[in-house]
Amino acid sequence: MTHEPSLLLALDLAGTFAFGLNGALTAVRAVRLDIVGVISLGMVTALGGGIIRDILINALPPATFRDWRYLSVAAGGGLVAFAAGRWWDRLMMPITVLDALGLSLFAVTGSSKALGYGLGVGQAVILGAITGVGGGTLRDVLIQRVPTVLTSGLYAIPALVAAAITVATTREGVYGVPAALGAAAACFVIRMVGVRYGLNAPRPRGVSPE
Amino acid sequence: MTHEPSLLLALDLAGTFAFGLNGALTAVRAVRLDIVGVISLGMVTALGGGIIRDILINALPPATFRDWRYLSVAAGGGLVAFAAGRWWDRLMMPITVLDALGLSLFAVTGSSKALGYGLGVGQAVILGAITGVGGGTLRDVLIQRVPTVLTSGLYAIPALVAAAITVATTREGVYGVPAALGAAAACFVIRMVGVRYGLNAPRPRGVSPE
Amino acid sequence: MTHEPSLLLALDLAGTFAFGLNGALTAVRAVRLDIVGVISLGMVTALGGGIIRDILINALPPATFRDWRYLSVAAGGGLVAFAAGRWWDRLMMPITVLDALGLSLFAVTGSSKALGYGLGVGQAVILGAITGVGGGTLRDVLIQRVPTVLTSGLYAIPALVAAAITVATTREGVYGVPAALGAAAACFVIRMVGVRYGLNAPRPRGVSPE
Repeated sequence: MTHEPSLLLALDLAGTFAFGLNGALTAVRAVRLDIVGVISLGMVTALGGGIIRDILINALPPATFRDWRYLSVAAGGGLVAFAAGRWWDRLMMPITVLDALGLSLFAVTGSSKALGYGLGVGQAVILGAITGVGGGTLRDVLIQRVPTVLTSGLYAIPALVAAAITVATTREGVYGVPAALGAAAACFVIRMVGVRYGLNAPRPRGVSPE
Repeated sequence: MTHEPSLLLALDLAGTFAFGLNGALTAVRAVRLDIVGVISLGMVTALGGGIIRDILINALPPATFRDWRYLSVAAGGGLVAFAAGRWWDRLMMPITVLDALGLSLFAVTGSSKALGYGLGVGQAVILGAITGVGGGTLRDVLIQRVPTVLTSGLYAIPALVAAAITVATTREGVYGVPAALGAAAACFVIRMVGVRYGLNAPRPRGVSPE
Repeated sequence: MTHEPSLLLALDLAGTFAFGLNGALTAVRAVRLDIVGVISLGMVTALGGGIIRDILINALPPATFRDWRYLSVAAGGGLVAFAAGRWWDRLMMPITVLDALGLSLFAVTGSSKALGYGLGVGQAVILGAITGVGGGTLRDVLIQRVPTVLTSGLYAIPALVAAAITVATTREGVYGVPAALGAAAACFVIRMVGVRYGLNAPRPRGVSPE
């Protein structure tokens, strides 16, 4: 098993920043909270996935609370969103792009760290998806939206793809910077294509919703 | 303390299947998600209670991530619900029955496992109820319903009864297959009687809701 | 590092009682649940913050499940609210006062316990705030409200102040009963002034909510 702690840390911090910005922008645009609410929602979104991952693999206290860089980067993302929120409105889909970025990076780091803690192959893939999906799910629950992972089929699937690539390349001994970036890129592209064309996974047939 | 790991596993997997089916059927009927959403909600419902239990008794990583059978059975329940969802509509209350089944089985396994990890008698009873109630509560939070445990009095009480029977028989040294099935049956019967006759626990008097 | 386990326990139990009463009164007044729902919501509110703290600092099983007094005090708070709910309506803001009390006490115990488990200074401050805010946030999510911590700026800030005083006095070696009560009082006063005058933290400018 190759240990790449600095790669894991770099990807984790990049995902943390993307999700911190995303969560805080969501707060600014959708709920219009004050600065504490904006930064809190940014931090929950940024840190939620990694904390859930670290609880489930028994890596407590979570990395978030062992390494001050996580808290700083998450709060930094929230501050940027608070300060620059009005400019973001003119950009194309920044919230969705940031969310796809965080999803992709965390799917890689979640599955990689799960393998490092001795979990099985299938479990590591699912833990990667949970890590990618966790922060955004907490964000949606807190602001009373049905979480994206439930409503958009092409949200969990790209995360599972990135996690599967990470696990497969680790097992083959070829995991490293190129594999990690490739896995994240695959997830990002699938997710953004899904958003652009409104793609969804198959729905159940013949059932009329209540 | 009698260890019955195979009994615990069997009851746990049966509860997992019942809750996986229940959560996925809820998704199909109440929210009409796509296949990923249906299976995700099934898995959260199936695995949530056991994961919360294992976190609280410090049995990390949770059984879910140590033993591949949990993930398979939960996903299997979700797939069955997705494939057969249209037939379920014609059956009487399948969702409620499955929920009562999962509640009953998890109340037994939760309290039994908590005792095995050295928790006290009262704590084990409450942990049994939390295990039974946990997955459905996460399901309801995700699809924006007030959790059943808060609104229906005869939901937590039968779980507490099953957990208390489990704890009492374990302390007396007579816990085993008959006691476990008897405890689960007691919970199931009380819950279904409550559903059938719309029974509730006493409500506070003289307070007008806002 | 001064260990003051009896001080920690006393403050923790006082906060547990305040939050148990608060959560159960919220249930009685806002949702009108039956007795099980009322006590369940009281217990979640009372125990949620401490459980989240103990998970994050790796003190599992949580104090709640090691020491029967937590469960008893939380349930006791819920029972008092259930029995006396109709009298509370005539008092001034009892729910808000109880919430501010729990917030203040848990911010102190959370940061103090985090230091005792070896976490860094910044992390301990944030963990104090999470402990104070956690139970109420779970309460709000369960009854489908946007959590107070997101909507009211002067909710997280006083908790951070109390946690910072606790951490600073511990580092200086002067932490004890007076410092703990002073930190809690500072939080309580700031929070109640904020409630009384409707104060909020700054909001983002130039952004129109969707």
